[in-house]
Amino acid sequence: MLHAQVHLTLPAWTHDTIDLSRAYSSDQDKVTLAIELSRRNVEAASGGPFGAVVFGPDHRVISIGVNRVMPHTCSLAHAENMAYMLAQQRLQTPRLNERIAPITLATSSQPCCQCYGATVWAGIDRLLIGARAEDVMTLTEFDEGPLPADWIGELNKRGIEVVRDLCRDDARAVLRAYGEMGDDRY
Amino acid sequence: MLHAQVHLTLPAWTHDTIDLSRAYSSDQDKVTLAIELSRRNVEAASGGPFGAVVFGPDHRVISIGVNRVMPHTCSLAHAENMAYMLAQQRLQTPRLNERIAPITLATSSQPCCQCYGATVWAGIDRLLIGARAEDVMTLTEFDEGPLPADWIGELNKRGIEVVRDLCRDDARAVLRAYGEMGDDRY
Repeated sequence: MLHAQVHLTLPAWTHDTIDLSRAYSSDQDKVTLAIELSRRNVEAASGGPFGAVVFGPDHRVISIGVNRVMPHTCSLAHAENMAYMLAQQRLQTPRLNERIAPITLATSSQPCCQCYGATVWAGIDRLLIGARAEDVMTLTEFDEGPLPADWIGELNKRGIEVVRDLCRDDARAVLRAYGEMGDDRY
Repeated sequence: MLHAQVHLTLPAWTHDTIDLSRAYSSDQDKVTLAIELSRRNVEAASGGPFGAVVFGPDHRVISIGVNRVMPHTCSLAHAENMAYMLAQQRLQTPRLNERIAPITLATSSQPCCQCYGATVWAGIDRLLIGARAEDVMTLTEFDEGPLPADWIGELNKRGIEVVRDLCRDDARAVLRAYGEMGDDRY
């Protein structure tokens, strides 16, 4: 029989972690939440060490994502992709900033090649990043994949501002702890 | 309340279209099926003009995908991504060719930047392409997004063979018909 339905979920612990009424005003506040999600995801053994959050113009959470690759045996289920899909479902649009703007994605680590491409279509205005790709690769041995040489410039051309190195040391600490666990790579 | 579940589906007509027992022996046979899915998806108004199929070593269908961006308000729901997720769910692995190999993806059009990245992680050995990116952009006005300059070489480096221009005219015909409809772009 043809498989025709995909069902992806966040882990149950996220419901007790997220306060939808709270405003995360600064860029640092936003990335700190993404990093906190990456840390909890490892602690709960509910996926890889990555977290992401979509914020609306009021600085409140629209959706979150954590890495769910191994639990769902799904290479698409990266933190950023989960956050995009859930935000688009909540706002009922495949291009978030056609509904409300500006839309911000905060992510614990630089998007890999797959989430980079997803970022081009998701409809965000700002991309806030904790750890760099080289942090991910040296601390965890995850591959980040091939990107356009001027990946930031390509996003800028499409109206997406990129801010890097936000709380980078905090993000690196989670990656380092995960790398030292010797756990399954997704 | 936090949205925590994503549910993506293929359109119901796919169940009557796919014969899981049939072997699609040649590269042309494989891409012809992907193009047929792209055509039916437009006819049924169940998404954009794109189709993709994952084949196993026996040349039989493991999974299929069609574009479901508008029906699911999900920018991730491209044909290739749907096919990867469904194949990974069926084989219960996030990296398809760790279960069986070689794995082939046939797609009606060159993967966009998002599906390109997904292709790096999905675990395929061969990528068969109908229409080129420039066909998609000139015939439909869909954007294909930024890719690494040597996008084929980057896939080759990761063990993925790329074959282009398979039944390109047939793939172009579906794109042209869609472009002339003046329908919603996803």
